[in-house]
Amino acid sequence: MFESAELGHKISKEMFRRELPLLREALLDAQLDLLQSRRFPVIILLAGVDCAGKGETMNLLHEWMDPRHIESHALRELTDEERERPPMWRYWRDLPPKGKIGIFIGSWYSAPLLDNVHGISKNAELDQQLDRIIRFETMLCNEGALILKFWLHLSEEQQRKRLRKLEKDPKTRWRVKESDWKNFKNYARFRTVSERMLRTTSTPKAPWNIVEGADERYRSLTIGRAILEALRRRLDAPAAPAADEPLPPLLTSIDGLQILQTLDMTKKIAKKRYDEELEALQGRLNLLSRHKNFNRLSVVTVFEGNDAAGKGGSIRRVTQALDARSYRVIPIAAPTEEERAQPYLWRFWRHLPRRGRLAVFDRSWYGRVLVERVEEYCSRTDWMRAYGEINDFEEQLVRNHTVVVKFWLAITPEEQLRRFKEREKIGFKRFKITDDDWRNREKWSLYAQAVCDMIDRTSTEIAPWTLVEANDKNYARIKVLKTICDRLEQALDRL
Amino acid sequence: MFESAELGHKISKEMFRRELPLLREALLDAQLDLLQSRRFPVIILLAGVDCAGKGETMNLLHEWMDPRHIESHALRELTDEERERPPMWRYWRDLPPKGKIGIFIGSWYSAPLLDNVHGISKNAELDQQLDRIIRFETMLCNEGALILKFWLHLSEEQQRKRLRKLEKDPKTRWRVKESDWKNFKNYARFRTVSERMLRTTSTPKAPWNIVEGADERYRSLTIGRAILEALRRRLDAPAAPAADEPLPPLLTSIDGLQILQTLDMTKKIAKKRYDEELEALQGRLNLLSRHKNFNRLSVVTVFEGNDAAGKGGSIRRVTQALDARSYRVIPIAAPTEEERAQPYLWRFWRHLPRRGRLAVFDRSWYGRVLVERVEEYCSRTDWMRAYGEINDFEEQLVRNHTVVVKFWLAITPEEQLRRFKEREKIGFKRFKITDDDWRNREKWSLYAQAVCDMIDRTSTEIAPWTLVEANDKNYARIKVLKTICDRLEQALDRL
Repeated sequence: MFESAELGHKISKEMFRRELPLLREALLDAQLDLLQSRRFPVIILLAGVDCAGKGETMNLLHEWMDPRHIESHALRELTDEERERPPMWRYWRDLPPKGKIGIFIGSWYSAPLLDNVHGISKNAELDQQLDRIIRFETMLCNEGALILKFWLHLSEEQQRKRLRKLEKDPKTRWRVKESDWKNFKNYARFRTVSERMLRTTSTPKAPWNIVEGADERYRSLTIGRAILEALRRRLDAPAAPAADEPLPPLLTSIDGLQILQTLDMTKKIAKKRYDEELEALQGRLNLLSRHKNFNRLSVVTVFEGNDAAGKGGSIRRVTQALDARSYRVIPIAAPTEEERAQPYLWRFWRHLPRRGRLAVFDRSWYGRVLVERVEEYCSRTDWMRAYGEINDFEEQLVRNHTVVVKFWLAITPEEQLRRFKEREKIGFKRFKITDDDWRNREKWSLYAQAVCDMIDRTSTEIAPWTLVEANDKNYARIKVLKTICDRLEQALDRL
Repeated sequence: MFESAELGHKISKEMFRRELPLLREALLDAQLDLLQSRRFPVIILLAGVDCAGKGETMNLLHEWMDPRHIESHALRELTDEERERPPMWRYWRDLPPKGKIGIFIGSWYSAPLLDNVHGISKNAELDQQLDRIIRFETMLCNEGALILKFWLHLSEEQQRKRLRKLEKDPKTRWRVKESDWKNFKNYARFRTVSERMLRTTSTPKAPWNIVEGADERYRSLTIGRAILEALRRRLDAPAAPAADEPLPPLLTSIDGLQILQTLDMTKKIAKKRYDEELEALQGRLNLLSRHKNFNRLSVVTVFEGNDAAGKGGSIRRVTQALDARSYRVIPIAAPTEEERAQPYLWRFWRHLPRRGRLAVFDRSWYGRVLVERVEEYCSRTDWMRAYGEINDFEEQLVRNHTVVVKFWLAITPEEQLRRFKEREKIGFKRFKITDDDWRNREKWSLYAQAVCDMIDRTSTEIAPWTLVEANDKNYARIKVLKTICDRLEQALDRL
């Protein structure tokens, strides 16, 4: 795989001088078109052998294009904020929005590669990590991103020469770290693992491009031109017509029996017992949130449900038990402009809690497979792939010691109608009912099917759905509180 | 994930009797349309809990449709033929051609699932295996297959009941094996691992469908209808327009230096030395092929090269050294009708050698990224994904102790012209030169680019390309023989 990058590629000074102005102008044009169209984000990865010119290339790209619309990220130690979130959190933060270019030195590939080179991870684990990377990049591509991956390569001999040369020159000596020579001793192993990694993660939509790094002019011009060509190809292509593939249908229940219908919607709780249990459970939750090991966990709760099912009231009963510094309620409405310029999961990633904190999502990423599906805001292909993307997302949370508690608050259509009418009557509740609510009601059965599919495809052992019979608000509140307490207790026990 | 399949779904006898004739007629119609259109193959997987009705369902589907166009495969012990090939070989053999339906009980999912349940494989290995399955199924889908995956589920209680009931009845007692009760004790673990597996391998194009297995009528009607609906949806959709996505371009060399140009095409060998070395190398190869451990290996050699580069002559010098019972030469020309009805790699899988055998491919699967790319027989998306598919294929070979030796025989355009003219002159060689050869010559630079991309993307440490300077035929033959001997020796040493 590295053969073509060990041929001694070279570009003469004259040719470089001749080509550069044209390239720079074309790159600037393309960057401007990208910015104005805001059609897609560009993610450029610069990876490869030490001292093969990653940093220089990044600097050049800033010089050649308008640096105000480039966001660069270099490998660095994790901040404490980052250490308390899933490993991919830092990269989600750094994703460029549509219209902008993000350049990464040291990306999601760095840790898997080095861990395997240094024997910290086995090959099966490496494959597992690479598979997750492929899923991540596939999702980004499906969301429209243009990913350009460059691997800067030096042969063993070239790298030796380059390290020596940098060391000799007092002006560049600082660039050669002790770790560089140490890594160099591992060259053969590094090469083997890199090859495996590049091979596995070269996909049609995001292939690796291996560039010989020894000659600065060759390297720079090659990468500059490749970026230009890729940008132009995407910018000049007609906006994707989103051709919906004929995907196989999802199973529907042929006897009309759906999981939501099996709920006993008459369940209720007497006022007196409610008051007692509420107090007891809120006390229990408060104690749990002050447990000495609580700061080794994060908690994410998700509230979904029919309109007027009482999500807000249930959430308040939960937060009443908590110290206001330890939780955040995140109400999910239409995405902001900034959020629309990112993959749909981005706006949830940004709100993930640190250790010892709770995030309460009032509606959530499940909007993708509920409202966006039913109202056809996204294509069938989009919501079909969302089940897997959401499971991947929640798996990352759970792996990072996050307790994920998901509630579906269910009410009957009759109860909903009663509540809608009540809301219209009561002044201070009128803001809670809109035309949308009435429209959604007409699509009751479509929503019911979407909810059942959602439960079937995303209720997992690690992040199960809890279905809450919510015709009686008090009953629902108690069930919600009890579930959270039980799940927390379980998680604390397991630590 | 199993919630909806534990609700106690039921279909009454009356409803079943009413629905069945309609379903059968519609299924037969769809099957006939499929057969006549020959547009795609249908792969139905029946998996799930023991005794949940997999076998009954398979029998029913045969009864309901025309069994002449259904190919069924049940889990069984590997034959010795299969044991000597990569694990996926048996499934490649069993793939239904376009227009037909293949039903699998016990598929590529069985071993990964059971190995993990019984603690033979760790979770990272399971993920690795599942990832390979996803790549395999994705490839099948991209090649047009319709994959329908049904998971027949029973709750723990339902399974216990069912096992007891089968045991009580003298007519069905034989169906309950001791292993069924043993597996039953593992129910919880089986459920956990199954869930993980179903979740990971549910993709938009090939999602799992979980079906409650307890009620025979419900189960049968659900699966029958789901198959019908999926068939109709695909048959009634317009034939895919193969919209070519705007994939990023592959890197091209900007200084005009390509790996093929770095070959020293003047290399030659004197006749006398050739005769000596040929004899020595053929002797060495013969000995190696009779090495006591040779029957623990398989060997696959691939000969690609420019037209008239001397592939045939080189191949003969190799086979001369071998016992005719131990090798097969597989000349690859246009695919047969049978082969065109399968994924493009199918016709190579069928020729994989057993242990102790050599397969010599005169042209190969690389046609996909050479002639099919240049002549636009397939779309850009198709040949771009082929690099990864080919690497996956060769990785399976290598994992199965196959030595993969790949040659590119290179000649210069001038030498080719000389040989073409010579062939036209000499009567018995005239059949070797066709109009196609002259046409290909005009596309020399397109082919050169395709060859370089092929080498860059598929020359791996486990299956490297050897570039052979073939202007001098004798030099080429010696290099080929020597390479095979060296690679074989290496592999035998490593055993």
